[in-house]
Amino acid sequence: MAYLMNAWYAVAWSDEIGSALFGRTLLGRPVVLFRNAEKRITAIGGRCPHRFAPLERGQLIDNTVACPYHGLRFDTSGQCVFNPHGRQTVPPAARVPAYPVAERHLLVWVWMGDPERADPAQIPDYSFVDRPGWVTVKGTICGKGHYELYTDNILDLGHAEFIHPNTVGAPSFTYGKREMFQRGNVVHSNFFAPNDFLSPVLSMIFQRTGTRVDAKVEVQWTAPASMLLMHQSNDVGQPPSDAQVLGTYHVFTPQTEQTTYYFWVVSRKYRADDAQLTKGILEGFQATFEHEDKPMIAAQHDLMGGADFWSLKPILLEGDAAGVRARRVLSKMIGEEQVGTSGT
Amino acid sequence: MAYLMNAWYAVAWSDEIGSALFGRTLLGRPVVLFRNAEKRITAIGGRCPHRFAPLERGQLIDNTVACPYHGLRFDTSGQCVFNPHGRQTVPPAARVPAYPVAERHLLVWVWMGDPERADPAQIPDYSFVDRPGWVTVKGTICGKGHYELYTDNILDLGHAEFIHPNTVGAPSFTYGKREMFQRGNVVHSNFFAPNDFLSPVLSMIFQRTGTRVDAKVEVQWTAPASMLLMHQSNDVGQPPSDAQVLGTYHVFTPQTEQTTYYFWVVSRKYRADDAQLTKGILEGFQATFEHEDKPMIAAQHDLMGGADFWSLKPILLEGDAAGVRARRVLSKMIGEEQVGTSGT
Amino acid sequence: MAYLMNAWYAVAWSDEIGSALFGRTLLGRPVVLFRNAEKRITAIGGRCPHRFAPLERGQLIDNTVACPYHGLRFDTSGQCVFNPHGRQTVPPAARVPAYPVAERHLLVWVWMGDPERADPAQIPDYSFVDRPGWVTVKGTICGKGHYELYTDNILDLGHAEFIHPNTVGAPSFTYGKREMFQRGNVVHSNFFAPNDFLSPVLSMIFQRTGTRVDAKVEVQWTAPASMLLMHQSNDVGQPPSDAQVLGTYHVFTPQTEQTTYYFWVVSRKYRADDAQLTKGILEGFQATFEHEDKPMIAAQHDLMGGADFWSLKPILLEGDAAGVRARRVLSKMIGEEQVGTSGT
Repeated sequence: MAYLMNAWYAVAWSDEIGSALFGRTLLGRPVVLFRNAEKRITAIGGRCPHRFAPLERGQLIDNTVACPYHGLRFDTSGQCVFNPHGRQTVPPAARVPAYPVAERHLLVWVWMGDPERADPAQIPDYSFVDRPGWVTVKGTICGKGHYELYTDNILDLGHAEFIHPNTVGAPSFTYGKREMFQRGNVVHSNFFAPNDFLSPVLSMIFQRTGTRVDAKVEVQWTAPASMLLMHQSNDVGQPPSDAQVLGTYHVFTPQTEQTTYYFWVVSRKYRADDAQLTKGILEGFQATFEHEDKPMIAAQHDLMGGADFWSLKPILLEGDAAGVRARRVLSKMIGEEQVGTSGT
Repeated sequence: MAYLMNAWYAVAWSDEIGSALFGRTLLGRPVVLFRNAEKRITAIGGRCPHRFAPLERGQLIDNTVACPYHGLRFDTSGQCVFNPHGRQTVPPAARVPAYPVAERHLLVWVWMGDPERADPAQIPDYSFVDRPGWVTVKGTICGKGHYELYTDNILDLGHAEFIHPNTVGAPSFTYGKREMFQRGNVVHSNFFAPNDFLSPVLSMIFQRTGTRVDAKVEVQWTAPASMLLMHQSNDVGQPPSDAQVLGTYHVFTPQTEQTTYYFWVVSRKYRADDAQLTKGILEGFQATFEHEDKPMIAAQHDLMGGADFWSLKPILLEGDAAGVRARRVLSKMIGEEQVGTSGT
Repeated sequence: MAYLMNAWYAVAWSDEIGSALFGRTLLGRPVVLFRNAEKRITAIGGRCPHRFAPLERGQLIDNTVACPYHGLRFDTSGQCVFNPHGRQTVPPAARVPAYPVAERHLLVWVWMGDPERADPAQIPDYSFVDRPGWVTVKGTICGKGHYELYTDNILDLGHAEFIHPNTVGAPSFTYGKREMFQRGNVVHSNFFAPNDFLSPVLSMIFQRTGTRVDAKVEVQWTAPASMLLMHQSNDVGQPPSDAQVLGTYHVFTPQTEQTTYYFWVVSRKYRADDAQLTKGILEGFQATFEHEDKPMIAAQHDLMGGADFWSLKPILLEGDAAGVRARRVLSKMIGEEQVGTSGT
């Protein structure tokens, strides 16, 4: 399947990009990034057009990326501006793509399509991580499986009781009321679990073991594969409070068609100064995503044997409504892009 | 090449299947097995039709297999009978295949084709393992290579002198008289070695070092890849005796087109109570199959480079008569099955 | 891309081939070699035509190679001359290819094409390794990447400053004068660096740290991928002297389309008796090729993603002239061979 090109993809955490070259593959394309003295990030193609050497192993020299093999240097526009050899002629065609970059909500996003259309306003609003007084933990996973399998996993939290019983799962994810709706190209998938117990990890966070809450989870999917997930719980019958909110996002970037980067955060106001709690949250979610979700998605991937998802005629349940909707929206967007009629 | 579908395939030893879920891939298809309280074995497809999760990682709940990902439950007919989510509607199409199962001669066999045609009487008669007073050792190997390479290996024991000189090989396998004939779809391949020495392992078993015997090996191939191999030796010129018989079988099940499961037994009456001897037999044959046959077949597989056997124009020797016959019988059976005219 | 068949390929060092069977894959074909009592080397196909077993695991019996699986024996012409089984009939078609062999300049070369056309005079003249009073170190590498990537690497030494700054690289490889010309099918690529410093490794060898030399590098490429590389340096403005010459060759043999054997030597007269220096030269060049060139070429290979070199539209620089010429000569030779009009 083709990728959506005119879209922002998270490539790294902002704090991962400094003055050293940072290489990553996304959408099957090597990209190299660095931050200049003015803190501005450059992202250009990571494969030298001369002999296909990996620019990420090169050197940063005067805001140019010098190829590790023959020393060609590429500026922030991707143009080769220096050829050290012989008469030092620079072939005009010696260039790599330059990708528009934006930093938002702890992440570095790159735009993989037509640079003219790159509008940072299209990056989903995850500003909850920027709120004063809140503390955020975050992590990165790279796993087997198409990125839409990761999307499905978040849009149907019905899996939580089964693969996360000792971490973030609770029965309410199974029997709780769900709703799904679409606004523009954003798909919403919500769960409501009144008068329930919290999952083990959330009980630990909110010191709630054995007491009931009204819980609500709101998920927003933005193409291609970025999800906001807000978890809110409060004393049964009481109004919502900031103190019982966990803000999370789950942003997936295809490394290849078969492998996916998973960027996640968990943000809270509750006992924000409790470093021990912060550590517990980090470890709890890390273990959940790395040891519970990732192996399951890898197993799905393996059992699909390289076949297209729909060709396998998956059985659809109620809980798949949002995932299926997201797949359709994305498929439509890709189709429109390919015929060149996308009106975004 | 297609598989023969209307056939029994050994999937595991009877004593491997208990109340825990047991997963295995055969013919490229994942299968999950378990035994119920009445000792009856169920074998159903191992891939959930909802999201393709591996059922073998699930749970056994009230004689249903619960998917580890979203908790759908499948009964012994393969039908989904419980959906824990939302309104708990079970889509009728939510089912996995159910495979007829039979236990015979220490093995669990599953029928991969049309269930209507599954007749346990078609399982080859290896009842020698069930005889009172005999003791049996057994083992499983999983190796590289198409299962027909494993069949060839047993139907032409002429390899034994060369790859098993210190275990089960003897020169008589090379110069001994052979005969090959077919009865119905069963191919017979026999060796006769009068007045010969036994192989090192058989000399050890029968305490025969340095004395001569008349030896005879009878092999029966049943499609797709099951072989009985009876080894009988007796004092030169004397009539056969039970005490000098080793009953063995070699049953091959394709895991995939490139990898094969190898189930083997060695059964004897001679000094049946000698536990030390039993241990020696187990270790001797295990080493033979694991460290002598398996690497050779893996090397064949690698040097064939993915090509079809016949396309490589193999040189045929006398000793290949049975293997070639078995390949032809199997090819004919598969062809008949595919045009739907198999009269079995 | 097809291989050039009517060509000599280095397969091993002469001192690697003794009375034990030696197996290696070249051009995707398994070959087995041995040396007889008269020191003559045989090279025949390494895959038994009966059941495709690897002959390199067999035994050498009376100057025949006995297959490890069923004991067929092949003589030095590749013909099966013994079948131990049954009536011991040898099928005339039971044969493996026999490859003409020549030993030259420390290497064993085999001719992969029409044996009638195998002329050892076509082996490139690397007789510098045979000169009395000179001492030679050598090494073998096996790395990822098409052999033409290895050829390019030697024909454009402009990479040296960038990937070998602490070993054999010097800036003169970048700015020095180059010349490229072709004589027959031999491509010459020379570098001239007057009044320059030597690279760290060459400074170490010639005890030249901090003093300037006139340096000259002459490279000769012979199809398919053999290169002579002579490095000569002398006091600035002085005539050349033997004492400041390093003779090297770099001979590449495709193991497969994706992997390459690299045979190299470095030969000198200077302080030939200094064992410590010899050890330093061996280690210096070994590290250079294994840890600097090999990973870079592997990375190129990976980033090319299996695509044909020209299909990726590589940017061409001045320094690529010789590599491009060699590619064209080789392509032409292969094309001529395929239409059967090669007049060599």
